[in-house]
Amino acid sequence: MLELYYASGACSFIPHVTLEIIKTATGTEYTPKPVKLHRGEHKTPEFLAINPNGQVPVLVVDGQPLSQIVAICDYLDRRFPQVGLLPTEPWARAKVMSQFAWMNNTVHPTFTHVFMPQKFADGEAAQAELRRFNSLQYRACLERIQEWIGEAKPFWLGERVGILDAYALTLLRWGGFAGIDPDSLPAYKAFVARVAATEPVATIIARERIDLNTFKKA
Amino acid sequence: MLELYYASGACSFIPHVTLEIIKTATGTEYTPKPVKLHRGEHKTPEFLAINPNGQVPVLVVDGQPLSQIVAICDYLDRRFPQVGLLPTEPWARAKVMSQFAWMNNTVHPTFTHVFMPQKFADGEAAQAELRRFNSLQYRACLERIQEWIGEAKPFWLGERVGILDAYALTLLRWGGFAGIDPDSLPAYKAFVARVAATEPVATIIARERIDLNTFKKA
Repeated sequence: MLELYYASGACSFIPHVTLEIIKTATGTEYTPKPVKLHRGEHKTPEFLAINPNGQVPVLVVDGQPLSQIVAICDYLDRRFPQVGLLPTEPWARAKVMSQFAWMNNTVHPTFTHVFMPQKFADGEAAQAELRRFNSLQYRACLERIQEWIGEAKPFWLGERVGILDAYALTLLRWGGFAGIDPDSLPAYKAFVARVAATEPVATIIARERIDLNTFKKA
Repeated sequence: MLELYYASGACSFIPHVTLEIIKTATGTEYTPKPVKLHRGEHKTPEFLAINPNGQVPVLVVDGQPLSQIVAICDYLDRRFPQVGLLPTEPWARAKVMSQFAWMNNTVHPTFTHVFMPQKFADGEAAQAELRRFNSLQYRACLERIQEWIGEAKPFWLGERVGILDAYALTLLRWGGFAGIDPDSLPAYKAFVARVAATEPVATIIARERIDLNTFKKA
């Protein structure tokens, strides 16, 4: 039995889309379990028993919890090899894992500095500086992703939408919260529109009730 | 042909040890390529051509570069399955990948805030606050790792030293630079001494010329 604890618009979107792709390809059901961060549901004793870090996503497999999207997606790829979530050719897989790890350990944390600077420093002045400095860094990250997208045909790994497409969508969507107008990254924006129009991604966007464009003109 | 670009004491220590373990187990040679960060060798045009992020490690396989330690270690595990670097049982592997990803996307960046706050904010006041705040966070991370080490028998995955042992060693060693006395984490310190005494780890410590204990009393 597969259950996914997710929060609307968080990075849990990536395994959420992945599970929907698996469901479409294999018929394997999963249970989405929404966690409302604004109500502090990720800090309850029940949730902390599942993930002591108090973070989504958590994949629960037959009652056993697994956190970290890199680990969750790698596990799902191994459990459902027929879906082809990640390349099987070792070098092609390695290159994709390298991009995945960079999004996870660099791009995502850079955004966190803008969105939740209180995780890194106390005091208004330091937090304002974190927001300012890391918004610029975050834009540079999105530009790098836009370069990579130049090679998408039409999706990250070819004909079918997958893990890194969902990640790229999430990261551009977060850009709006960092003051980055998606219209300033037109190739990236067009790619995300293509990704969002696929059936598994559209299903999860609807379930999580998220807007693709979060940017508000000042 | 395998080449590893590494910097003394950096997180490249983890694939460096991994390659030495592979060499011991299979006889596969690799070429260690030192990169002197204090001389800016990671910012030269030659190095940036290999890794545009200007970071070590980079594994070069038959002339093709691969960055990100999670991707490098996953690749080496798949290429040398007979070495048993990571568990083959899917759930056991998933749990290890989850710990690996957390060290990589949370513990390592927390340390970077202490060691190189200029990567996250301009200005002395904001940088001082980053150092202060994240030293405390870093200590909490090391305490979590110490809890996990309670299950090591005698190493992370059992009888043989491996990837997460090398990572745990590196993270405690960095703790000294964050003002954390390893004597305040005695079980962790004893574990690291055990890891450091194994032949592949001792070989890399000697090659990188690093001291295990970097803590200096105030």
